[in-house]
Amino acid sequence: MIKKYTFGNPLKTGAVVLEISPSEGSPAGFEINAKEKELKTGLSKDAYVYGLGETIRGINKRGWIYRSNNADEPHHEEGKNSLYASHNFFILDDGKNCRGYFVDHPGFVEFDIGYSDKDLFTIRFEDFDADFYEIEGNEPKEIVRAFRELIGKSYMPPIWAFGYGQSRWGYKTADDIREVNNRYKELGIPLDMIYMDIDYMQDFKDFTVNPKRFPDFENFVKEMKDDGIRLIPIIDAGVKIEKGYDIYEEGVAQNYFCKKEDGTNLVAAVWPGKVHFPDFLNTKAREWFGDKYKTLTDVGIEGFWNDMNEPAIFYTEDHLKEVFEGIHEMENKELDIWGFFQFRGLIEGIANNPEDYRRFFHDFDGVKVRHDKVHNLYGFYMTRAAGEAFPRIAPDKKILMFSRASYIGMHRYGGVWTGDNMSWWSHLLLNIKQMPSLNMAGFIYSGADTGGFGCDCTEDLMMRWIEFSMFTPLFRNHAALGTREQELYQFKDSESFRNLVELRYALIPYIYREFTKAVENNSMYFRPLFFDYRNDDRCREIEDQLLVGDSIMIAPVYEQNKTGRYVYLPEDMKMLRMRSYNDYDEEVVTAGDHYIKAELNEVLVFIRPGQKLPLTKPARHVDDLNLDELTFIS
Amino acid sequence: MIKKYTFGNPLKTGAVVLEISPSEGSPAGFEINAKEKELKTGLSKDAYVYGLGETIRGINKRGWIYRSNNADEPHHEEGKNSLYASHNFFILDDGKNCRGYFVDHPGFVEFDIGYSDKDLFTIRFEDFDADFYEIEGNEPKEIVRAFRELIGKSYMPPIWAFGYGQSRWGYKTADDIREVNNRYKELGIPLDMIYMDIDYMQDFKDFTVNPKRFPDFENFVKEMKDDGIRLIPIIDAGVKIEKGYDIYEEGVAQNYFCKKEDGTNLVAAVWPGKVHFPDFLNTKAREWFGDKYKTLTDVGIEGFWNDMNEPAIFYTEDHLKEVFEGIHEMENKELDIWGFFQFRGLIEGIANNPEDYRRFFHDFDGVKVRHDKVHNLYGFYMTRAAGEAFPRIAPDKKILMFSRASYIGMHRYGGVWTGDNMSWWSHLLLNIKQMPSLNMAGFIYSGADTGGFGCDCTEDLMMRWIEFSMFTPLFRNHAALGTREQELYQFKDSESFRNLVELRYALIPYIYREFTKAVENNSMYFRPLFFDYRNDDRCREIEDQLLVGDSIMIAPVYEQNKTGRYVYLPEDMKMLRMRSYNDYDEEVVTAGDHYIKAELNEVLVFIRPGQKLPLTKPARHVDDLNLDELTFIS
Repeated sequence: MIKKYTFGNPLKTGAVVLEISPSEGSPAGFEINAKEKELKTGLSKDAYVYGLGETIRGINKRGWIYRSNNADEPHHEEGKNSLYASHNFFILDDGKNCRGYFVDHPGFVEFDIGYSDKDLFTIRFEDFDADFYEIEGNEPKEIVRAFRELIGKSYMPPIWAFGYGQSRWGYKTADDIREVNNRYKELGIPLDMIYMDIDYMQDFKDFTVNPKRFPDFENFVKEMKDDGIRLIPIIDAGVKIEKGYDIYEEGVAQNYFCKKEDGTNLVAAVWPGKVHFPDFLNTKAREWFGDKYKTLTDVGIEGFWNDMNEPAIFYTEDHLKEVFEGIHEMENKELDIWGFFQFRGLIEGIANNPEDYRRFFHDFDGVKVRHDKVHNLYGFYMTRAAGEAFPRIAPDKKILMFSRASYIGMHRYGGVWTGDNMSWWSHLLLNIKQMPSLNMAGFIYSGADTGGFGCDCTEDLMMRWIEFSMFTPLFRNHAALGTREQELYQFKDSESFRNLVELRYALIPYIYREFTKAVENNSMYFRPLFFDYRNDDRCREIEDQLLVGDSIMIAPVYEQNKTGRYVYLPEDMKMLRMRSYNDYDEEVVTAGDHYIKAELNEVLVFIRPGQKLPLTKPARHVDDLNLDELTFIS
Repeated sequence: MIKKYTFGNPLKTGAVVLEISPSEGSPAGFEINAKEKELKTGLSKDAYVYGLGETIRGINKRGWIYRSNNADEPHHEEGKNSLYASHNFFILDDGKNCRGYFVDHPGFVEFDIGYSDKDLFTIRFEDFDADFYEIEGNEPKEIVRAFRELIGKSYMPPIWAFGYGQSRWGYKTADDIREVNNRYKELGIPLDMIYMDIDYMQDFKDFTVNPKRFPDFENFVKEMKDDGIRLIPIIDAGVKIEKGYDIYEEGVAQNYFCKKEDGTNLVAAVWPGKVHFPDFLNTKAREWFGDKYKTLTDVGIEGFWNDMNEPAIFYTEDHLKEVFEGIHEMENKELDIWGFFQFRGLIEGIANNPEDYRRFFHDFDGVKVRHDKVHNLYGFYMTRAAGEAFPRIAPDKKILMFSRASYIGMHRYGGVWTGDNMSWWSHLLLNIKQMPSLNMAGFIYSGADTGGFGCDCTEDLMMRWIEFSMFTPLFRNHAALGTREQELYQFKDSESFRNLVELRYALIPYIYREFTKAVENNSMYFRPLFFDYRNDDRCREIEDQLLVGDSIMIAPVYEQNKTGRYVYLPEDMKMLRMRSYNDYDEEVVTAGDHYIKAELNEVLVFIRPGQKLPLTKPARHVDDLNLDELTFIS
């Protein structure tokens, strides 16, 4: 049972696909205060809050304040409030009642879940215009299913997208990419994708390829494909301002870029230097931009990742002018220490400045809307541009697509990765906790930058992270320019890395089957234990073990210098301590608490009673797997 | 057995108090490469490394690279390499051999403990001048005892310093401080100290008090003392450049400030604006600065904290000039995106710039030494200035003293707090892991900013943190300007907070006794389990339970939304689940693994077999405790 309550005059975000007639009155449990632009409900001692998709902190969201305000935020620390996505769906489960809620509002929303007052949950708006959905159900899984019906079926990628991918910001030439492939091949570590970060483009211009560093790109794509490797280029939101660059020229001529109040195109700066932002909220601009992917699909490209689409802004032309004026003013005074901090703050606040998001406007199909009012839709609509275009421009192919910024609704067009994380053990744990929340919001094809994007990765962190990421649908090793190189061949124990990646490939029949079920049945591929074991109170607080599909539970080791961990089993299970697809210990572990050994190269998999885990023989590429010849462990 | 190996011509740091004759040859296990300025040893699979005092990451230091380079670093993240201290002592325990090592070198040292190569431990120097001590012993506790004999007895604070203290950057007036006292009093929460951050000074000048905001300071000190509260002011390293300010004038006249190559005094900027840095390495300057504390001890002050003594540098006059030149140069060019990052980097790199630490010199009792060569001594020698002065200027009193920056040797003059941490759950865990490492290095009087300094603290985090900090000798709640107010009266469940702080006071007889033993016997107040249970391999990896003194083990809850945790017991123990000093559950828990419930307001204490835990009746102040009338739980 879904009820919709409408506050003010909400814009249609495109998040939902079912038409629900508005209800009168108030949503259950919540008290509305339109004047204060907020909703409030009490949190009993035993109340749990699940959801909010891609955020920091735990699976239970209590005890913090989260802000839907898509942000280019590489510091995923406990003190942050916003990451790249706004997924305004949550389940409030107080032991007696369990209800889902979806706040369909494309601007700023704040979820104060027992932060200001530990017994209160307050939702605050900047603009009190929203469709507020209330979803009844007996238990979380039922609520999630109903919600996912409301928002439509999740994106289904091609099967090869379940292979392992290597990425790094800094592969500058075709030869760099060949080397990655060759070194993986030498070690016999499976690999299906090599990602191309911004380096491949000509001056960071979307849909261009640097002809010097990638001569005869079409042939190169073919060469790699013939060797089983698909190249997955990045596409950024900003379009470089450059006379003669077709996309720039067309966008200007056809008014497809976001405009300032005075009608001129906003000038911002990102990787290409000065750019305009395509107005993805305008249907025509969206079609136009979507068609541009054809430049790359026509030469054999079958997958993309959309980036910088919060949108990230390094600076705007207007604001930089203000900053320099400020600097001059300060320089002429004798700087006291507060003046110095003001000076520093001026520069440190240049990027992603909130004021900049109020400087430009969209033509939201005829309605002029200031960007900040619809900010959280931008990445969604960029990805929608691509997702709507693919059937037109590459009708015979399934195209891989995932995005950094997102809003609920985008899950129909692509997956997400969790953005610029760090090579931190705590981010491996964050990755574990984010996955079920993303699934609730419809993002099933998802994963983190394995090994961490920023900072320097150690061999043990990479190995433990691989041991978790091998279960995430999106399985990509990615790192930033300037960090320690972390391709698996950079480390010493390549045998264990090969065994672990092979194990992933052996698991693909299971992973793909369970993924497909989650998409088809609007269910969750990753679930907290308490979603399945509703009568086992001990499961409520467990956030470092997950159910993966219907047959298994995993318990990753996520701490440095540990060769074991505690595991709680809600019922007897068959435990596999796996070093590879064909080298593992088997043991039935009884229900209850156990300290279980797991050396650095060992993965713990628990098979649920009555279930069987199918395995196939690994191969270097997904396309070479025999998906029918399976062995079963039970 | 301690051996000393001397490389090059090391400066005398003052870390050690025993004269050891140098040995010929190489330290056991280590290979010396003087040309590369490094020492190397292999790390077997089972080797553990303990020590390095105040650092990030675990009790076992394997798998990261640590740099001794005292830093004003509020971001204690996993990717960092240096915090505020350089504690170059470690124990290498490979199962067969267990040895301690101390690298007595006051400049930059790098400890690459299985980072670059997981099987190698490399120590790298910028200057290969060091006394390298090797300490034999059968087990870690024996090695620690021998090392601590080498470096001399640890600082012993007055007993009232074991009370609870409230601090915040932002108490601007005497009335602000009265309010803190009154609100604690109203709720009956014990309190012994209120800390005075930089706000109390006149224009941030050391040893001044703003007479408007603190009229008749002496009387105010007395008024508070009469109410059982000691005021603990901060002292910063930099001396404000201001005509007529006596300390500035004297320091200039007597050449007590650090000088640049050209003989002029370095001009840096910190809180007071432009400052000179006292040359604490110069004995005369040290005496002179130490005597200045008399200004405050004479009006009744009995404790201090030394801060900003890495030294932190917001900017130097010379470098700021270079930055502005750089800005002008860039402004005149059309900034491309890399130019923009260069521009931003210019400003972001102003503070604590490595070049600035090479711009000035010390008169190290007759030897001119460039600052970076002795950088890690600066905070030590500032605190030594105070510690050496106290018997002269306040002979009848025991003075509380702790510092932010430190080097081994400083432990004889004061304690440390762990600097500007954050209100993060992960920093509560870091706090737990740092304590035994600090103890090894001689820093027994230590603790973290309870609740976290930066970021916003939630009620549950504060409560869990109090539940750990109640065992740390230094027990202070401290927070930064601009963060959420976190005095215990700011939260709802003040009853539980009162019960918990009272429990600390009830435990003071135990804490003080065990602390004194650690100081007198050169032992550790906080120990990892494996230091006592050498034959229990399970204890090796346990880093979230600690032995506190000889009688108890603690197992703090450090995760949000958890009402229990796993605990490993190496032997049967009496468990206390304590809500207050006189409200607790008792239960004998058998050796092995247990999941143990602990609600938000409950502390788990485990009494070791044959031991008794003494408790006294709590009081509002330490001075009012009856230390003789004890009840014992066993």
